[in-house]
Amino acid sequence: MAQTRRTFIASAAVLTAGVASGMSLTTMETKEKKQLAHHVFFWLKNRDSKEDLNKLIEGLNTLKKIETIRSIHIGIPASTEKRDVVDNSYSASELIFFDDVEGQNTYQVHPIHKKFVENYSHLWEKVIVYDAIDL
Amino acid sequence: MAQTRRTFIASAAVLTAGVASGMSLTTMETKEKKQLAHHVFFWLKNRDSKEDLNKLIEGLNTLKKIETIRSIHIGIPASTEKRDVVDNSYSASELIFFDDVEGQNTYQVHPIHKKFVENYSHLWEKVIVYDAIDL
Repeated sequence: MAQTRRTFIASAAVLTAGVASGMSLTTMETKEKKQLAHHVFFWLKNRDSKEDLNKLIEGLNTLKKIETIRSIHIGIPASTEKRDVVDNSYSASELIFFDDVEGQNTYQVHPIHKKFVENYSHLWEKVIVYDAIDL
Repeated sequence: MAQTRRTFIASAAVLTAGVASGMSLTTMETKEKKQLAHHVFFWLKNRDSKEDLNKLIEGLNTLKKIETIRSIHIGIPASTEKRDVVDNSYSASELIFFDDVEGQNTYQVHPIHKKFVENYSHLWEKVIVYDAIDL
């Protein structure tokens, strides 16, 4: 308990100093804990259909309610420079942070996630998933 | 407990309303600003070399000093379930958040990034980059 409290005081001091110096909270949070980044890229069957893209995004937004999600980013390809190594061919992406592998496992079998796959998977022809754990 | 107190301190500083409504800090941050997620996956030439992996990670750590980086995650494949859609063949990944496309552009031509490519690119045989902008 004493150890916990000392750790807390130290991190509170770091946090306070960080806020005072204008660091973003996200940066501090990220430095404090190791997380699992679950990044999914979707390629629509109808790549040029704005309607299908909007539907997919609607579906991705339903995932936000899953309790083990710590933060979620729903995105589309950014207008960065076209380079050979950059893959900007996907339609939309979902980047979710979990506390650990367990959090991701719970997400996979969660009714909301299952419903998302059931209702929206007809829209895409390809999916790639990368699960990366912080070092 | 530490998390609760940390949340309280941060909320006292900036985010009182959100915490009062029960949102997590990370969620609020994510909802407050749109960011660019720059996710790079590296495949080592010597895939089984612990030494080369450590060197690459050493190199990735040098990138942290680039000023336009808002947060960075250096990771390796997580031990999530093997599924057809999951690509866990990469050696290491770098996930960086920037405020915008401009922040990523600055990063690309930054001397620290150029030095990283110069000093460590002999280690990898393949790189894939995904740049996603939050919707």
